[in-house]
Amino acid sequence: MTGSDLLPSWNDSAARTAILEFVETVTRPGPSYVPPADRIATFDNDGTLWCEKPQYVEAEFVFRRWQEMIEEDPAKANEQPYMALAEDDQTWLSSLLAHLPDLVKGVTEAYEGITVGAFERAVLEFFATATHPTLGVPYTQVGYQPMRELIDLLRAREFLVFICTGGGRDFMRPVSEQLYGIPRERVIGSATAVQYRDGDLYRTSNVEQPIDDGTGKPEHIWMRTGHTPLFAGGNADGDVPMLTTARFSLLIHHDDASREFAYDAGADKALASARDHGWTVVSMQNDFRAIFDR
Amino acid sequence: MTGSDLLPSWNDSAARTAILEFVETVTRPGPSYVPPADRIATFDNDGTLWCEKPQYVEAEFVFRRWQEMIEEDPAKANEQPYMALAEDDQTWLSSLLAHLPDLVKGVTEAYEGITVGAFERAVLEFFATATHPTLGVPYTQVGYQPMRELIDLLRAREFLVFICTGGGRDFMRPVSEQLYGIPRERVIGSATAVQYRDGDLYRTSNVEQPIDDGTGKPEHIWMRTGHTPLFAGGNADGDVPMLTTARFSLLIHHDDASREFAYDAGADKALASARDHGWTVVSMQNDFRAIFDR
Repeated sequence: MTGSDLLPSWNDSAARTAILEFVETVTRPGPSYVPPADRIATFDNDGTLWCEKPQYVEAEFVFRRWQEMIEEDPAKANEQPYMALAEDDQTWLSSLLAHLPDLVKGVTEAYEGITVGAFERAVLEFFATATHPTLGVPYTQVGYQPMRELIDLLRAREFLVFICTGGGRDFMRPVSEQLYGIPRERVIGSATAVQYRDGDLYRTSNVEQPIDDGTGKPEHIWMRTGHTPLFAGGNADGDVPMLTTARFSLLIHHDDASREFAYDAGADKALASARDHGWTVVSMQNDFRAIFDR
Repeated sequence: MTGSDLLPSWNDSAARTAILEFVETVTRPGPSYVPPADRIATFDNDGTLWCEKPQYVEAEFVFRRWQEMIEEDPAKANEQPYMALAEDDQTWLSSLLAHLPDLVKGVTEAYEGITVGAFERAVLEFFATATHPTLGVPYTQVGYQPMRELIDLLRAREFLVFICTGGGRDFMRPVSEQLYGIPRERVIGSATAVQYRDGDLYRTSNVEQPIDDGTGKPEHIWMRTGHTPLFAGGNADGDVPMLTTARFSLLIHHDDASREFAYDAGADKALASARDHGWTVVSMQNDFRAIFDR
């Protein structure tokens, strides 16, 4: 299984070979064969399946809502986090993004009390109208084409492929099929708790614990699938526990400043773990023939 | 779609006809067509898919562990809940079962601190050795054959079928495929929180909130699938919110004292809701040609 028709957006590199050999090994009859029911693949989302710079996509979504809240009530511009947005305080906003729980909480507060259906409409409206600030395309087009091909390959080999996102589960579900061909019930992620009342489901002010980052990732994966992953992909320190529990672990390294972004911040432990454990590190510059599908 | 080869363990009754007509309506082209991605079916487990009398199966599993704990430490027989078991205090044990959170907590305490793998082995050991007190067969044979056929029919029509159990999710996952052909990642249920540590997952002393009963059922179904059910089946008051959110709602009525058990306790509100909302009520006595597969 090394035909050039497989993973066409990947260069013919060691990373591509390692992936193809592992998939072949666990799906053909033999001592390493794994039955389809146990072929669980889990992928982090931000920075692993789509672009997370210069901001998390979900942060742009929340900022847009905060902007609306400031317009509805200008006094809000005197308090954080709205003040930071009103004053375009990039230092403050960047430090917010360094704290995933705060981001999850921000989404929660911005959409507290509405039905899950109304939230989904807001998400779809965002994806229909917003564009990436530097790539200049809708956010539905900032997924990495080589990773979409990898997901397709795994699915063709009867893997059950899940997204396991530190960001909002209910933010990704409305677009996961369009972006990655992954149905909504296979999206695992951090979430606002919902409450059933009078026949409908409402978003609350509570964040489900644990969030789906760090040790929360293998915990969420167990809760949702009853498995540890056979194959996992990530790009950051928060992915290390998930990658540690997987049989095959892929780490995306952002080293392509010209075609995407180059950064190691937040990935130091992940890169060190990859060296220690022999994980497959993907250089976006060297291993990806193309990054986006256009 | 009313051929006699479908649902063979069902009598040719109004309930069977209503099921077949609904499935036909939402799967054939037309104004009521529902695409496969949205064909979510959810079934309560205890009393809906398998026998829950004279005790919940999971209670038998927990009692067996409590018995071990008493043997390891006889002083335990002086405190509840172990005393009730040691003294065979049926009044106390029955009142325990009336309180599902206590049962979930009991499971949690009985198996606190062990790995999810060790718990799974304990579950499989129980199913391999325990037998139902009145039916005299292993618990893997107390599932209702007509419901297995219904699950098979829904799956053949491209429904995604989930178990949604008020009992322990991790208690059913090891046997859900064998019992119902439902893979473990499609088991939704109450659960002990797990904690990731040093590459493995350990059961904790915390019960995940909410438990998967009452309003917790549609909440769990949303968390796990991002859907409300198209088709749902239940048998008790704790299933009412789930059944209320479904397009087609099936209520199993336990009225067959000779072949199974006859009881309405805990189903009064469900039976009243079924009348109010026109849900399809299944009389086990009249609608099931056979109850068990033997």
